[in-house]
Amino acid sequence: MEKIIKFSNAATHFYFDSSIKQLSKIADKKSLVIITDENIFKAHTAKFKGCNVIALKPGEAYKVQATVDEVIDTLIKMEADRKTVLVGVGGGVITDLTGYIASVYMRGLRFGFVPTSILALVDASIGGKNGIDVDRYKNLVGVIRQPSFILHDISLLQSLPQSEWENGFAEIIKHACIKDAAMFRQLQKESITSYQEDSRKLSDLIRRNALIKTRVVQKDEFEKGERRLLNLGHTLGHALEKEYELMHGQAVAIGTTYACHISEKITGFAQTEDVVALLEQYHLPTYASFNKQKVFNSLKMDKKREQKEMNFVLLDKIGKGVVKAIPMKQLEKIISRL
Amino acid sequence: MEKIIKFSNAATHFYFDSSIKQLSKIADKKSLVIITDENIFKAHTAKFKGCNVIALKPGEAYKVQATVDEVIDTLIKMEADRKTVLVGVGGGVITDLTGYIASVYMRGLRFGFVPTSILALVDASIGGKNGIDVDRYKNLVGVIRQPSFILHDISLLQSLPQSEWENGFAEIIKHACIKDAAMFRQLQKESITSYQEDSRKLSDLIRRNALIKTRVVQKDEFEKGERRLLNLGHTLGHALEKEYELMHGQAVAIGTTYACHISEKITGFAQTEDVVALLEQYHLPTYASFNKQKVFNSLKMDKKREQKEMNFVLLDKIGKGVVKAIPMKQLEKIISRL
Repeated sequence: MEKIIKFSNAATHFYFDSSIKQLSKIADKKSLVIITDENIFKAHTAKFKGCNVIALKPGEAYKVQATVDEVIDTLIKMEADRKTVLVGVGGGVITDLTGYIASVYMRGLRFGFVPTSILALVDASIGGKNGIDVDRYKNLVGVIRQPSFILHDISLLQSLPQSEWENGFAEIIKHACIKDAAMFRQLQKESITSYQEDSRKLSDLIRRNALIKTRVVQKDEFEKGERRLLNLGHTLGHALEKEYELMHGQAVAIGTTYACHISEKITGFAQTEDVVALLEQYHLPTYASFNKQKVFNSLKMDKKREQKEMNFVLLDKIGKGVVKAIPMKQLEKIISRL
Repeated sequence: MEKIIKFSNAATHFYFDSSIKQLSKIADKKSLVIITDENIFKAHTAKFKGCNVIALKPGEAYKVQATVDEVIDTLIKMEADRKTVLVGVGGGVITDLTGYIASVYMRGLRFGFVPTSILALVDASIGGKNGIDVDRYKNLVGVIRQPSFILHDISLLQSLPQSEWENGFAEIIKHACIKDAAMFRQLQKESITSYQEDSRKLSDLIRRNALIKTRVVQKDEFEKGERRLLNLGHTLGHALEKEYELMHGQAVAIGTTYACHISEKITGFAQTEDVVALLEQYHLPTYASFNKQKVFNSLKMDKKREQKEMNFVLLDKIGKGVVKAIPMKQLEKIISRL
């Protein structure tokens, strides 16, 4: 005898052009526990006054189970309960960790993000993917759960190093490539400096990108189709990131460059030069020499691999990404010839 | 500026009166990874022939992060990917662990359960709560995620020790108390032996209980109201379990007994003697002397505590449970006088 039982859902509240001071209006200050890293805490100490703060060591190396265990112990000591709201104030490492810890502590606390990097504002904070790395495998463990809120406070970008600006623009250019040809043209007319000098222009760009990502995720929360487009440049990018010392945005930029070349072969894409030129305009790397076999082996453990073939994101034209299943053997051949 | 974005869901397939052999019809055998414990594996080795099996050390002591880490390492070595289906074959410890690991590995694999104890059949396998213990805190970490399927194979109960039968009947009696007066009367006429001797009677009882729990969970997956009824006897029960060496069912039986007495004071419940007699008929403990202060302190960390008060499940009458918020101070007083 069989029986099917149905279940579940959630909503994210966006506060654009806001200020971290508004947190106390979102939840009772006593219920809030802020998770951030030591760099952000030092750069903005005054903004955290009167808050419960857990400041972690900065960097991807700490996006691991040991940090999760540590934070959980601290939450137990703080007597955090189901009314506690965790707020991740930081870049992607902090938002990934905060979302994951909030998703598993007492089977799920409310949580929100205040992203402090371009990358986190336009990408990492959105979409509910969270989690940790295991050994060499990025994001191998995690859950998909939407934050209750995302609050943008552009003033926090003042402490952001230049390399992190470039890092963030890799995802912005990716969004333009897969979804927004008009934004691609706008980016061609601007530069990192011109955005840094005009906070209105910058916050419009950030909001536009946050909404591109949000719309894609909303159509396909659990990544069965549309959402895979966001992986442009990431399949190869993640493999490169594992094997070489690269920032995420650099790896994605290189991955995007090669995805353009693979697209030429499979979809007939003809605008590789424009994409490469734009990446370079934003100080991002494009062509790189790498150990093809090593990188291919790394790909094999990618979460996007489905047994004998891999879903790879390609471009039809600028503004239109497509997902193609490429047999692993064909992919190995293409990569070896890049 | 504010914006609200909506998301999500899931379904559980029940296979009642089935056989573990049917697993190969649910998913390709190569994609299945069975998680079980060494006792079950030894007792039913032939049934696992040709399957990928991870056999864990048995017992609640292993329902911890270290076991999760270990299984994740094994899954990586097995090259488990998103098409892998994890199947927990075991009691509550195994189903809790399997559901949790499947929920976080690669941000979520499909998973199902083959419960091998009465407790797991009527309770632990149902409802999507899964997770692990942290230090002294039971189920402190976990997520709520529904299994894709639950398959009942009553033949697996042949290896179940007698104490585990009693353990399971504590939850069956709990269901009768909160939801089903007719089943309460049926239980009064039967015994563990009479169910053991009549597999039709037993499987009807198991299905009836699985459906009681399922209906309650379906109405309130994330435990905001109705689902709390299932905690009858559990608030005190969990505290007792932490402080003393008790099986879960024994702790729940004692917890239920005292919940009846607390109900007398708050709802005017008048059938404590009937409940106590039924628990004893199924060889379950009822009254126990315990350190009231120690148990109360343990309660304070219970997930059901919401700051200054605690949601406590009481009985109006047999077949009708109710949830009352009791201030922590009043609760401390009541417990000290039990």
